Amino acid sequence: MNGPGDAATAVESPPNANSVVFGVEYDGRCFHGMQSQAGVATVQDALQQAIARVGNNPSCAAKIVAAGRTDAGVHATQQVVSFTANAVRTEDAWRMGVTRETPDGLGVVWCRTLPAGFSARFDALWRRYVYVIQDGRARPVIGRGLCTWVQQSLDETAMQQAALPLIGEHDFSAFRAAACQSRSPWRCIHHLRVRRVGSFVAIDIQANAFLLRMVRNIAGTLLAVGRSALPQEAPAELLAGRDRRRAPPTAPAQGLYLIDVGYPTIPTSPRPPPLLASADPDWLRA
Amino acid sequence: MNGPGDAATAVESPPNANSVVFGVEYDGRCFHGMQSQAGVATVQDALQQAIARVGNNPSCAAKIVAAGRTDAGVHATQQVVSFTANAVRTEDAWRMGVTRETPDGLGVVWCRTLPAGFSARFDALWRRYVYVIQDGRARPVIGRGLCTWVQQSLDETAMQQAALPLIGEHDFSAFRAAACQSRSPWRCIHHLRVRRVGSFVAIDIQANAFLLRMVRNIAGTLLAVGRSALPQEAPAELLAGRDRRRAPPTAPAQGLYLIDVGYPTIPTSPRPPPLLASADPDWLRA
Repeated sequence: MNGPGDAATAVESPPNANSVVFGVEYDGRCFHGMQSQAGVATVQDALQQAIARVGNNPSCAAKIVAAGRTDAGVHATQQVVSFTANAVRTEDAWRMGVTRETPDGLGVVWCRTLPAGFSARFDALWRRYVYVIQDGRARPVIGRGLCTWVQQSLDETAMQQAALPLIGEHDFSAFRAAACQSRSPWRCIHHLRVRRVGSFVAIDIQANAFLLRMVRNIAGTLLAVGRSALPQEAPAELLAGRDRRRAPPTAPAQGLYLIDVGYPTIPTSPRPPPLLASADPDWLRA
Repeated sequence: MNGPGDAATAVESPPNANSVVFGVEYDGRCFHGMQSQAGVATVQDALQQAIARVGNNPSCAAKIVAAGRTDAGVHATQQVVSFTANAVRTEDAWRMGVTRETPDGLGVVWCRTLPAGFSARFDALWRRYVYVIQDGRARPVIGRGLCTWVQQSLDETAMQQAALPLIGEHDFSAFRAAACQSRSPWRCIHHLRVRRVGSFVAIDIQANAFLLRMVRNIAGTLLAVGRSALPQEAPAELLAGRDRRRAPPTAPAQGLYLIDVGYPTIPTSPRPPPLLASADPDWLRA
């Protein structure tokens, strides 16, 4: 739709093909991450199998493209995926059919059909994640797996101050996993807010795109500041040093949620993580 | 401590025995209810086994007494249980030790040790439950099992109006399960509030005690009012009719949480269900 490869894609698609776009919610505990892997359950495989059944096309299963390549254990309240479909279905038929055909822990929240050539990955302008931490003496029991727990009380004001120098366009090598295959370590963070929301601390971060583990590596560093294990200046110094080995450990996957993706042509609203869904929705506004 | 049988209990206990009281959180999905049953995992068995290990007394496992006999699938953010212990442990040692020895989905939130003779069941003045409903088109995915979902928008104002006649002392036969073994169908509801909390509707109900399935039967009737399947006058008419067979179905267990129990001697605070924990805590106040 916006990328240079789109015209070619449209030409290669059959004349009656269109792009189907889903907003997808999933529980990270149920899958070994977004991307297909042999021998384990992934969001991609579960969706592709369901799409083939709903589209009545088992021999030519649609390949989906996702806006964010979430790791094992990471949740999404709103991942966006797209695929090229020959089958003609209404948006409600796709949404309800694919939700019905996917296992527990996965569901389609919304569906849009567009002219062929849309890519949930290449047309995305930005991705937004929220990292959820519960601080306090009692270990979460019912909410286990849906947040990260730290016993110490976190100083969310110090965390917010420490985060400010990361906003904007930087070389994020210090917050990039060794296995990251991206050609450039440069990314642009649009906002990075740390707030107390009820009995939780939420890190709300939006960027054009993220490096491998970038959100969890930033969260791990801010957690260290929040419990006074690192000074407030540490994130800025680590950023400038561009050396991942000097930074604190990656924060656990279970606290992370992909909550929104921005496109020029599809209006979306952020979907809060379930543990934060009872808060005044203003916490998600600027 | 307050009941007529307490003096006798104290006399029968060994001279160095004391009462240990726990506030307990559990995920109803992990257990077949509170009470021991042969062949299935229950909260009582899991706690008793952990207590025996921490108290180093496997041959004479403590029998616990619970304030509320929650059904299979019902959650607790704060169930209160007590037992008589010969072993001397600090409150933190009990709390952390038993939490460590219990399976996932169960944890001790607080511990108090008292002179022998306290009963979490017979000394309780009241029990407080919250029933959590998510209304809206999208089925909850990450929050599945932690609330009840209805597709229709609920009219929480109609539900609140419909609930008012149930407050106070009444014969609750219309909201009592057939298997209920209580001698009297009379109970006293102290408060019954229906509120929208973020994207959820919460039914907050406190009574001296509850009949079998009483909260879920009241919730089922209020749900019918909320989606306009029954008129606002229905709960009062059902109450007066005292006939369970005329009332709507029992609401699912997964929406129900035991959140607090009142005692003359132990100060407690209500613990909100996790999906409502990010709300302004004022919704739990009068």
